[in-house]
Amino acid sequence: MEVDYGNIKVIGFDADDTLWVNETYFREAEEHFAQLLENYETKNKIDQELFKMEMQNLEIYGYGIKGFLLSMIESALDLSNNTVSQATLAQILNLGKEMISRPVELLEGVTHVLEQLQDKYRLIVLTKGDLLDQERKLEKSGLSQYFHHVEVLSDKKEENYKNLLDHLEINVKEFLMIGNSLKSDVLPIIGLGANAVHVPFHTTWAHEKVPVEEQTGNYLTLNSITEIMKYLN
Amino acid sequence: MEVDYGNIKVIGFDADDTLWVNETYFREAEEHFAQLLENYETKNKIDQELFKMEMQNLEIYGYGIKGFLLSMIESALDLSNNTVSQATLAQILNLGKEMISRPVELLEGVTHVLEQLQDKYRLIVLTKGDLLDQERKLEKSGLSQYFHHVEVLSDKKEENYKNLLDHLEINVKEFLMIGNSLKSDVLPIIGLGANAVHVPFHTTWAHEKVPVEEQTGNYLTLNSITEIMKYLN
Repeated sequence: MEVDYGNIKVIGFDADDTLWVNETYFREAEEHFAQLLENYETKNKIDQELFKMEMQNLEIYGYGIKGFLLSMIESALDLSNNTVSQATLAQILNLGKEMISRPVELLEGVTHVLEQLQDKYRLIVLTKGDLLDQERKLEKSGLSQYFHHVEVLSDKKEENYKNLLDHLEINVKEFLMIGNSLKSDVLPIIGLGANAVHVPFHTTWAHEKVPVEEQTGNYLTLNSITEIMKYLN
Repeated sequence: MEVDYGNIKVIGFDADDTLWVNETYFREAEEHFAQLLENYETKNKIDQELFKMEMQNLEIYGYGIKGFLLSMIESALDLSNNTVSQATLAQILNLGKEMISRPVELLEGVTHVLEQLQDKYRLIVLTKGDLLDQERKLEKSGLSQYFHHVEVLSDKKEENYKNLLDHLEINVKEFLMIGNSLKSDVLPIIGLGANAVHVPFHTTWAHEKVPVEEQTGNYLTLNSITEIMKYLN
Protein backbone atom coordinates (compact mmCIF):
# COMPACT_ATOMS: atom_id res chain seq x y z
CA MET A 1 0.00 0.00 0.00
CA GLU A 2 1.22 3.48 -0.88
CA VAL A 3 0.92 5.79 2.11
CA ASP A 4 1.73 9.42 2.60
CA TYR A 5 1.79 10.70 6.13
CA GLY A 6 3.21 14.08 5.19
CA ASN A 7 0.16 15.90 6.59
CA ILE A 8 0.22 14.22 9.96
CA LYS A 9 0.65 16.51 12.98
CA VAL A 10 -0.97 14.56 15.80
CA ILE A 11 -0.50 10.85 16.55
CA GLY A 12 -2.88 9.01 18.86
CA PHE A 13 -1.74 5.83 20.55
CA ASP A 14 -4.00 3.20 21.98
CA ALA A 15 -2.52 1.96 25.28
CA ASP A 16 -3.54 -1.61 26.21
CA ASP A 17 -1.72 -4.10 23.95
CA THR A 18 -0.28 -1.25 21.88
CA LEU A 19 2.05 0.39 24.41
CA TRP A 20 1.96 -2.34 27.05
CA VAL A 21 0.76 -5.90 27.69
CA ASN A 22 -2.84 -6.18 28.85
CA GLU A 23 -4.91 -8.92 27.24
CA THR A 24 -2.45 -11.59 28.39
CA TYR A 25 -3.29 -10.75 32.01
CA PHE A 26 -7.00 -11.14 31.36
CA ARG A 27 -6.40 -14.52 29.69
CA GLU A 28 -4.34 -15.63 32.69
CA ALA A 29 -7.07 -14.53 35.09
CA GLU A 30 -9.63 -16.47 33.04
CA GLU A 31 -7.44 -19.58 33.23
CA HIS A 32 -7.22 -19.19 36.97
CA PHE A 33 -10.96 -18.58 37.23
CA ALA A 34 -11.68 -21.79 35.27
CA GLN A 35 -9.40 -23.75 37.59
CA LEU A 36 -11.21 -22.41 40.64
CA LEU A 37 -14.52 -23.62 39.19
CA GLU A 38 -13.33 -26.89 37.60
CA ASN A 39 -15.61 -28.97 39.85
CA TYR A 40 -18.69 -27.35 38.34
CA GLU A 41 -18.15 -27.17 34.58
CA THR A 42 -15.69 -27.83 31.76
CA LYS A 43 -13.14 -25.13 31.01
CA ASN A 44 -14.79 -24.44 27.70
CA LYS A 45 -18.21 -23.93 29.24
CA ILE A 46 -16.80 -21.72 32.00
CA ASP A 47 -15.03 -19.54 29.40
CA GLN A 48 -18.22 -19.21 27.38
CA GLU A 49 -20.39 -18.37 30.36
CA LEU A 50 -17.97 -15.79 31.70
CA PHE A 51 -17.80 -14.09 28.31
CA LYS A 52 -21.60 -14.13 28.07
CA MET A 53 -21.83 -12.55 31.52
CA GLU A 54 -19.28 -9.86 30.56
CA MET A 55 -21.25 -9.00 27.44
CA GLN A 56 -24.51 -8.90 29.38
CA ASN A 57 -22.96 -6.57 31.95
CA LEU A 58 -20.96 -4.43 29.53
CA GLU A 59 -23.59 -1.76 29.24
CA ILE A 60 -23.80 -1.24 32.99
CA TYR A 61 -20.21 -1.93 34.05
CA GLY A 62 -18.26 -0.80 30.97
CA TYR A 63 -14.67 -1.86 30.20
CA GLY A 64 -11.97 -2.50 32.75
CA ILE A 65 -10.91 -4.79 35.56
CA LYS A 66 -13.62 -3.87 38.08
CA GLY A 67 -16.44 -4.85 35.73
CA PHE A 68 -14.55 -8.02 34.77
CA LEU A 69 -14.17 -8.86 38.46
CA LEU A 70 -17.87 -8.31 39.18
CA SER A 71 -18.75 -10.50 36.18
CA MET A 72 -16.43 -13.27 37.44
CA ILE A 73 -18.19 -13.23 40.82
CA GLU A 74 -21.64 -13.29 39.24
CA SER A 75 -20.58 -16.10 36.87
CA ALA A 76 -19.14 -18.16 39.73
CA LEU A 77 -22.45 -17.90 41.60
CA ASP A 78 -24.43 -18.73 38.45
CA LEU A 79 -22.27 -21.61 37.20
CA SER A 80 -22.30 -23.28 40.63
CA ASN A 81 -25.98 -22.67 41.29
CA ASN A 82 -24.98 -20.61 44.31
CA THR A 83 -22.88 -23.42 45.78
CA VAL A 84 -19.38 -22.05 45.09
CA SER A 85 -17.54 -21.68 48.39
CA GLN A 86 -17.11 -18.30 50.02
CA ALA A 87 -13.37 -18.96 50.14
CA THR A 88 -13.35 -19.36 46.35
CA LEU A 89 -15.20 -16.05 45.97
CA ALA A 90 -12.60 -14.41 48.18
CA GLN A 91 -9.90 -15.88 45.88
CA ILE A 92 -11.66 -14.38 42.87
CA LEU A 93 -11.62 -10.96 44.55
CA ASN A 94 -7.89 -11.40 45.04
CA LEU A 95 -7.41 -12.34 41.39
CA GLY A 96 -8.80 -8.93 40.46
CA LYS A 97 -6.70 -7.07 43.00
CA GLU A 98 -3.60 -8.81 41.69
CA MET A 99 -4.44 -7.76 38.14
CA ILE A 100 -4.77 -4.13 39.25
CA SER A 101 -1.46 -4.26 41.10
CA ARG A 102 0.65 -5.83 38.36
CA PRO A 103 3.60 -3.90 37.04
CA VAL A 104 3.30 -2.47 33.54
CA GLU A 105 5.23 -4.40 30.90
CA LEU A 106 6.04 -2.22 27.89
CA LEU A 107 5.94 -3.75 24.42
CA GLU A 108 9.21 -3.94 22.52
CA GLY A 109 10.39 -0.77 20.83
CA VAL A 110 7.70 1.50 22.32
CA THR A 111 10.01 3.83 24.22
CA HIS A 112 12.34 4.16 21.25
CA VAL A 113 9.48 5.04 18.88
CA LEU A 114 8.05 7.66 21.27
CA GLU A 115 11.48 9.21 21.75
CA GLN A 116 11.94 9.58 18.02
CA LEU A 117 8.48 10.99 17.38
CA GLN A 118 8.06 13.33 20.33
CA ASP A 119 9.74 16.39 18.85
CA LYS A 120 8.08 16.32 15.47
CA TYR A 121 4.52 15.33 16.40
CA ARG A 122 2.00 16.02 19.11
CA LEU A 123 1.54 12.62 20.76
CA ILE A 124 -1.59 11.71 22.65
CA VAL A 125 -2.91 8.57 24.36
CA LEU A 126 -6.47 7.51 23.57
CA THR A 127 -7.64 4.59 25.60
CA LYS A 128 -10.90 3.17 26.81
CA GLY A 129 -11.66 1.51 30.09
CA ASP A 130 -11.44 2.47 33.68
CA LEU A 131 -10.15 6.00 34.29
CA LEU A 132 -8.17 5.21 37.44
CA ASP A 133 -6.70 1.97 36.02
CA GLN A 134 -5.50 3.69 32.87
CA GLU A 135 -4.03 6.69 34.72
CA ARG A 136 -2.25 4.33 37.06
CA LYS A 137 -0.82 2.24 34.21
CA LEU A 138 0.41 5.31 32.40
CA GLU A 139 2.16 6.51 35.53
CA LYS A 140 3.73 3.10 36.16
CA SER A 141 4.80 2.90 32.51
CA GLY A 142 7.09 5.91 32.80
CA LEU A 143 5.80 7.10 29.41
CA SER A 144 3.78 10.15 30.56
CA GLN A 145 6.57 12.52 29.59
CA TYR A 146 6.11 11.75 25.90
CA PHE A 147 2.45 12.72 25.72
CA HIS A 148 0.78 16.11 25.36
CA HIS A 149 -2.57 14.76 26.38
CA VAL A 150 -4.19 11.61 27.71
CA GLU A 151 -7.83 10.84 27.18
CA VAL A 152 -9.71 7.91 28.64
CA LEU A 153 -12.93 7.29 26.72
CA SER A 154 -15.88 5.23 27.93
CA ASP A 155 -15.97 3.68 24.46
CA LYS A 156 -14.13 3.99 21.13
CA LYS A 157 -16.86 4.40 18.58
CA GLU A 158 -16.74 6.90 15.74
CA GLU A 159 -18.75 9.39 17.75
CA ASN A 160 -16.41 9.22 20.74
CA TYR A 161 -13.45 9.98 18.47
CA LYS A 162 -15.30 12.73 16.67
CA ASN A 163 -16.16 14.53 19.91
CA LEU A 164 -12.61 14.23 21.12
CA LEU A 165 -10.96 15.47 17.92
CA ASP A 166 -13.39 18.41 17.91
CA HIS A 167 -12.63 19.21 21.53
CA LEU A 168 -8.86 19.04 20.96
CA GLU A 169 -9.26 20.98 17.70
CA ILE A 170 -7.51 18.33 15.64
CA ASN A 171 -8.11 18.18 11.90
CA VAL A 172 -8.93 14.60 10.84
CA LYS A 173 -6.52 14.81 7.90
CA GLU A 174 -3.68 15.62 10.30
CA PHE A 175 -4.47 12.78 12.68
CA LEU A 176 -3.01 9.28 12.74
CA MET A 177 -4.15 6.62 15.20
CA ILE A 178 -2.01 3.60 16.07
CA GLY A 179 -3.50 0.62 17.86
CA ASN A 180 -3.95 -3.13 18.10
CA SER A 181 -7.73 -3.28 17.79
CA LEU A 182 -9.28 -3.10 14.32
CA LYS A 183 -12.66 -2.57 15.91
CA SER A 184 -11.70 0.18 18.36
CA ASP A 185 -8.56 1.82 16.98
CA VAL A 186 -8.75 1.46 13.21
CA LEU A 187 -12.22 1.16 11.66
CA PRO A 188 -13.88 4.11 13.50
CA ILE A 189 -10.88 6.29 12.62
CA ILE A 190 -11.06 5.35 8.94
CA GLY A 191 -14.77 6.06 9.14
CA LEU A 192 -14.01 9.63 10.19
CA GLY A 193 -11.62 10.13 7.28
CA ALA A 194 -8.54 10.14 9.51
CA ASN A 195 -5.54 7.80 9.23
CA ALA A 196 -4.95 4.56 11.10
CA VAL A 197 -2.22 1.99 11.53
CA HIS A 198 -3.00 -1.47 12.81
CA VAL A 199 -0.36 -3.21 14.92
CA PRO A 200 -1.97 -6.53 15.93
CA PHE A 201 -1.19 -8.04 19.31
CA HIS A 202 -0.91 -11.83 19.46
CA THR A 203 -4.04 -12.09 21.59
CA THR A 204 -7.37 -10.40 20.83
CA TRP A 205 -10.35 -10.35 23.17
CA ALA A 206 -13.39 -11.98 21.51
CA HIS A 207 -15.36 -8.72 21.93
CA GLU A 208 -12.78 -6.87 19.80
CA LYS A 209 -12.77 -9.34 16.93
CA VAL A 210 -13.97 -8.19 13.52
CA PRO A 211 -15.38 -10.53 10.80
CA VAL A 212 -12.96 -10.97 7.88
CA GLU A 213 -15.31 -9.26 5.42
CA GLU A 214 -15.24 -6.07 7.53
CA GLN A 215 -11.46 -5.95 7.84
CA THR A 216 -10.98 -4.00 4.63
CA GLY A 217 -10.20 -0.33 4.46
CA ASN A 218 -7.49 2.12 3.81
CA TYR A 219 -5.11 1.40 6.66
CA LEU A 220 -1.64 0.05 7.14
CA THR A 221 -0.92 -3.15 9.07
CA LEU A 222 2.48 -3.53 10.74
CA ASN A 223 4.10 -6.40 12.58
CA SER A 224 5.65 -4.17 15.18
CA ILE A 225 5.25 -0.57 16.31
CA THR A 226 8.89 0.09 15.41
CA GLU A 227 8.05 -0.31 11.70
CA ILE A 228 6.08 2.95 11.83
CA MET A 229 9.40 4.76 11.60
CA LYS A 230 9.67 3.73 7.95
CA TYR A 231 6.61 5.87 7.22
CA LEU A 232 7.18 8.84 9.52
CA ASN A 233 10.19 11.06 9.86
CA MET B 1 -19.02 38.25 52.87
CA GLU B 2 -18.45 40.74 50.09
CA VAL B 3 -18.00 38.96 46.79
CA ASP B 4 -17.35 40.20 43.30
CA TYR B 5 -17.76 37.73 40.49
CA GLY B 6 -17.37 40.32 37.75
CA ASN B 7 -14.31 38.55 36.31
CA ILE B 8 -15.92 35.13 36.07
CA LYS B 9 -16.11 33.62 32.59
CA VAL B 10 -16.22 29.89 33.27
CA ILE B 11 -18.33 28.11 35.88
CA GLY B 12 -17.58 24.54 36.90
CA PHE B 13 -20.30 22.44 38.47
CA ASP B 14 -19.76 19.36 40.54
CA ALA B 15 -22.39 16.77 39.60
CA ASP B 16 -23.21 14.27 42.40
CA ASP B 17 -25.25 16.03 45.11
CA THR B 18 -24.82 19.38 43.38
CA LEU B 19 -26.83 18.80 40.19
CA TRP B 20 -28.55 15.56 41.22
CA VAL B 21 -29.11 13.25 44.19
CA ASN B 22 -26.35 10.70 44.76
CA GLU B 23 -25.25 10.22 48.36
CA THR B 24 -28.79 9.32 49.41
CA TYR B 25 -28.63 6.24 47.18
CA PHE B 26 -25.37 5.11 48.73
CA ARG B 27 -26.87 5.54 52.23
CA GLU B 28 -29.89 3.48 51.19
CA ALA B 29 -27.64 0.74 49.79
CA GLU B 30 -25.69 0.71 53.07
CA GLU B 31 -28.94 0.34 55.02
CA HIS B 32 -29.92 -2.55 52.84
CA PHE B 33 -26.47 -4.11 53.14
CA ALA B 34 -26.65 -3.90 56.96
CA GLN B 35 -30.06 -5.60 56.91
CA LEU B 36 -28.69 -8.44 54.77
CA LEU B 37 -25.92 -9.02 57.32
CA GLU B 38 -27.89 -8.37 60.52
CA ASN B 39 -27.32 -11.93 61.77
CA TYR B 40 -23.57 -11.36 61.91
CA GLU B 41 -23.01 -7.94 63.44
CA THR B 42 -24.74 -4.80 64.72
CA LYS B 43 -25.67 -2.16 62.19
CA ASN B 44 -23.12 0.20 63.64
CA LYS B 45 -20.29 -2.31 63.34
CA ILE B 46 -21.32 -3.24 59.78
CA ASP B 47 -21.32 0.45 58.76
CA GLN B 48 -17.88 0.95 60.28
CA GLU B 49 -16.38 -2.14 58.68
CA LEU B 50 -17.79 -1.34 55.25
CA PHE B 51 -16.39 2.19 55.43
CA LYS B 52 -13.01 0.81 56.54
CA MET B 53 -13.03 -1.60 53.61
CA GLU B 54 -13.90 1.21 51.18
CA MET B 55 -11.03 3.34 52.46
CA GLN B 56 -8.65 0.39 52.28
CA ASN B 57 -9.70 -0.29 48.67
CA LEU B 58 -9.96 3.34 47.56
CA GLU B 59 -6.47 3.46 46.12
CA ILE B 60 -7.02 0.41 43.92
CA TYR B 61 -10.72 0.76 43.06
CA GLY B 62 -11.17 4.54 43.10
CA TYR B 63 -14.55 6.28 43.46
CA GLY B 64 -17.84 5.01 42.08
CA ILE B 65 -20.42 2.28 42.38
CA LYS B 66 -18.30 -0.62 41.08
CA GLY B 67 -15.64 -0.15 43.75
CA PHE B 68 -18.36 0.28 46.37
CA LEU B 69 -19.98 -2.95 45.22
CA LEU B 70 -16.70 -4.88 45.33
CA SER B 71 -16.06 -3.52 48.85
CA MET B 72 -19.56 -4.61 49.96
CA ILE B 73 -18.85 -8.16 48.75
CA GLU B 74 -15.46 -8.28 50.43
CA SER B 75 -16.95 -6.86 53.65
CA ALA B 76 -19.77 -9.40 53.64
CA LEU B 77 -17.24 -12.25 53.36
CA ASP B 78 -15.05 -10.72 56.09
CA LEU B 79 -17.80 -9.81 58.55
CA SER B 80 -19.32 -13.29 58.30
CA ASN B 81 -16.00 -15.14 58.40
CA ASN B 82 -16.81 -16.51 54.95
CA THR B 83 -20.18 -17.90 56.08
CA VAL B 84 -22.51 -15.38 54.38
CA SER B 85 -24.81 -17.25 52.01
CA GLN B 86 -24.22 -17.24 48.27
CA ALA B 87 -27.80 -16.03 47.83
CA THR B 88 -27.00 -12.99 49.97
CA LEU B 89 -23.93 -12.25 47.86
CA ALA B 90 -26.10 -12.42 44.75
CA GLN B 91 -28.48 -9.92 46.42
CA ILE B 92 -25.56 -7.59 47.08
CA LEU B 93 -24.61 -7.74 43.38
CA ASN B 94 -28.18 -6.78 42.57
CA LEU B 95 -28.06 -3.88 45.02
CA GLY B 96 -25.22 -2.46 42.96
CA LYS B 97 -26.93 -3.03 39.64
CA GLU B 98 -30.03 -1.29 40.95
CA MET B 99 -27.95 1.71 42.00
CA ILE B 100 -26.47 1.96 38.51
CA SER B 101 -29.88 1.72 36.87
CA ARG B 102 -31.68 4.32 38.99
CA PRO B 103 -33.15 7.32 37.27
CA VAL B 104 -31.41 10.64 37.85
CA GLU B 105 -33.22 12.95 40.25
CA LEU B 106 -32.27 16.59 39.68
CA LEU B 107 -31.93 18.89 42.66
CA GLU B 108 -34.39 21.77 42.93
CA GLY B 109 -33.70 24.79 40.78
CA VAL B 110 -30.80 23.27 38.84
CA THR B 111 -32.35 23.47 35.38
CA HIS B 112 -33.51 27.03 35.97
CA VAL B 113 -30.05 28.16 37.10
CA LEU B 114 -28.32 26.52 34.10
CA GLU B 115 -30.81 28.08 31.70
CA GLN B 116 -30.14 31.53 33.08
CA LEU B 117 -26.34 31.16 33.10
CA GLN B 118 -25.76 29.34 29.82
CA ASP B 119 -25.61 32.38 27.54
CA LYS B 120 -23.34 34.53 29.65
CA TYR B 121 -20.86 31.92 30.94
CA ARG B 122 -19.05 28.86 29.67
CA LEU B 123 -20.46 26.08 31.85
CA ILE B 124 -18.56 22.86 32.50
CA VAL B 125 -19.13 19.75 34.62
CA LEU B 126 -16.25 18.58 36.79
CA THR B 127 -16.92 15.36 38.55
CA LYS B 128 -14.96 12.48 39.97
CA GLY B 129 -15.78 8.80 39.97
CA ASP B 130 -16.49 6.23 37.36
CA LEU B 131 -16.34 7.54 33.80
CA LEU B 132 -19.19 5.43 32.42
CA ASP B 133 -21.46 6.06 35.44
CA GLN B 134 -20.98 9.80 35.23
CA GLU B 135 -21.52 9.94 31.46
CA ARG B 136 -24.65 7.86 31.85
CA LYS B 137 -26.01 10.08 34.62
CA LEU B 138 -25.39 13.21 32.61
CA GLU B 139 -27.22 11.73 29.66
CA LYS B 140 -30.16 10.63 31.81
CA SER B 141 -30.25 14.06 33.48
CA GLY B 142 -31.11 15.83 30.23
CA LEU B 143 -28.63 18.57 31.21
CA SER B 144 -25.90 17.88 28.60
CA GLN B 145 -27.13 20.70 26.39
CA TYR B 146 -26.12 23.33 28.93
CA PHE B 147 -22.46 22.32 29.13
CA HIS B 148 -19.51 23.16 26.89
CA HIS B 149 -17.38 20.44 28.37
CA VAL B 150 -17.59 17.54 30.78
CA GLU B 151 -14.58 16.21 32.59
CA VAL B 152 -14.52 13.14 34.81
CA LEU B 153 -11.46 13.21 37.07
CA SER B 154 -10.03 10.25 38.96
CA ASP B 155 -9.70 12.57 41.97
CA LYS B 156 -10.35 16.20 42.85
CA LYS B 157 -7.16 17.37 44.43
CA GLU B 158 -5.51 20.71 43.71
CA GLU B 159 -3.23 19.09 41.14
CA ASN B 160 -6.10 17.49 39.23
CA TYR B 161 -7.82 20.87 38.95
CA LYS B 162 -4.62 22.63 38.00
CA ASN B 163 -3.93 20.21 35.14
CA LEU B 164 -7.47 20.54 33.90
CA LEU B 165 -7.61 24.35 34.00
CA ASP B 166 -4.26 24.42 32.16
CA HIS B 167 -5.52 21.98 29.56
CA LEU B 168 -8.75 23.94 29.02
CA GLU B 169 -6.78 27.21 29.07
CA ILE B 170 -8.89 28.69 31.84
CA ASN B 171 -7.49 31.54 33.92
CA VAL B 172 -7.97 30.80 37.64
CA LYS B 173 -9.26 34.32 38.30
CA GLU B 174 -12.00 33.75 35.73
CA PHE B 175 -13.09 30.42 37.14
CA LEU B 176 -15.82 29.72 39.67
CA MET B 177 -16.51 26.21 41.00
CA ILE B 178 -19.86 25.29 42.57
CA GLY B 179 -20.20 22.08 44.57
CA ASN B 180 -21.42 20.36 47.70
CA SER B 181 -18.10 19.02 48.94
CA LEU B 182 -15.80 21.34 50.87
CA LYS B 183 -13.00 18.82 50.50
CA SER B 184 -13.34 18.16 46.78
CA ASP B 185 -15.08 21.19 45.27
CA VAL B 186 -14.10 24.14 47.45
CA LEU B 187 -10.79 23.91 49.33
CA PRO B 188 -8.60 22.76 46.39
CA ILE B 189 -10.11 25.51 44.22
CA ILE B 190 -9.42 28.18 46.83
CA GLY B 191 -5.92 26.74 47.10
CA LEU B 192 -5.39 27.48 43.41
CA GLY B 193 -6.55 31.06 43.78
CA ALA B 194 -9.80 30.46 41.91
CA ASN B 195 -13.32 31.08 43.25
CA ALA B 196 -15.63 28.59 44.91
CA VAL B 197 -19.19 28.41 46.17
CA HIS B 198 -20.24 25.77 48.63
CA VAL B 199 -23.80 24.47 48.40
CA PRO B 200 -24.00 21.76 51.07
CA PHE B 201 -26.17 18.70 50.52
CA HIS B 202 -28.00 17.33 53.57
CA THR B 203 -25.89 14.15 53.54
CA THR B 204 -22.09 14.04 53.34
CA TRP B 205 -20.04 10.87 52.91
CA ALA B 206 -17.64 10.43 55.85
CA HIS B 207 -14.70 10.44 53.43
CA GLU B 208 -15.64 13.95 52.24
CA LYS B 209 -15.95 15.48 55.70
CA VAL B 210 -13.57 18.25 56.69
CA PRO B 211 -12.60 19.11 60.31
CA VAL B 212 -14.18 22.41 61.48
CA GLU B 213 -10.80 24.12 61.83
CA GLU B 214 -10.07 23.55 58.13
CA GLN B 215 -13.41 24.86 56.93
CA THR B 216 -12.23 28.43 56.74
CA GLY B 217 -11.37 30.21 53.54
CA ASN B 218 -12.57 32.77 51.12
CA TYR B 219 -15.66 31.10 49.74
CA LEU B 220 -19.38 31.64 49.76
CA THR B 221 -21.81 29.15 51.31
CA LEU B 222 -25.35 29.01 49.97
CA ASN B 223 -28.43 27.09 51.07
CA SER B 224 -29.52 26.36 47.55
CA ILE B 225 -27.99 26.55 44.11
CA THR B 226 -30.67 29.04 43.07
CA GLU B 227 -29.17 31.65 45.43
CA ILE B 228 -26.15 31.91 43.14
CA MET B 229 -28.26 34.13 40.89
CA LYS B 230 -28.00 36.93 43.47
CA TYR B 231 -24.27 37.05 42.78
CA LEU B 232 -24.12 36.43 39.05
CA ASN B 233 -25.95 38.15 36.26
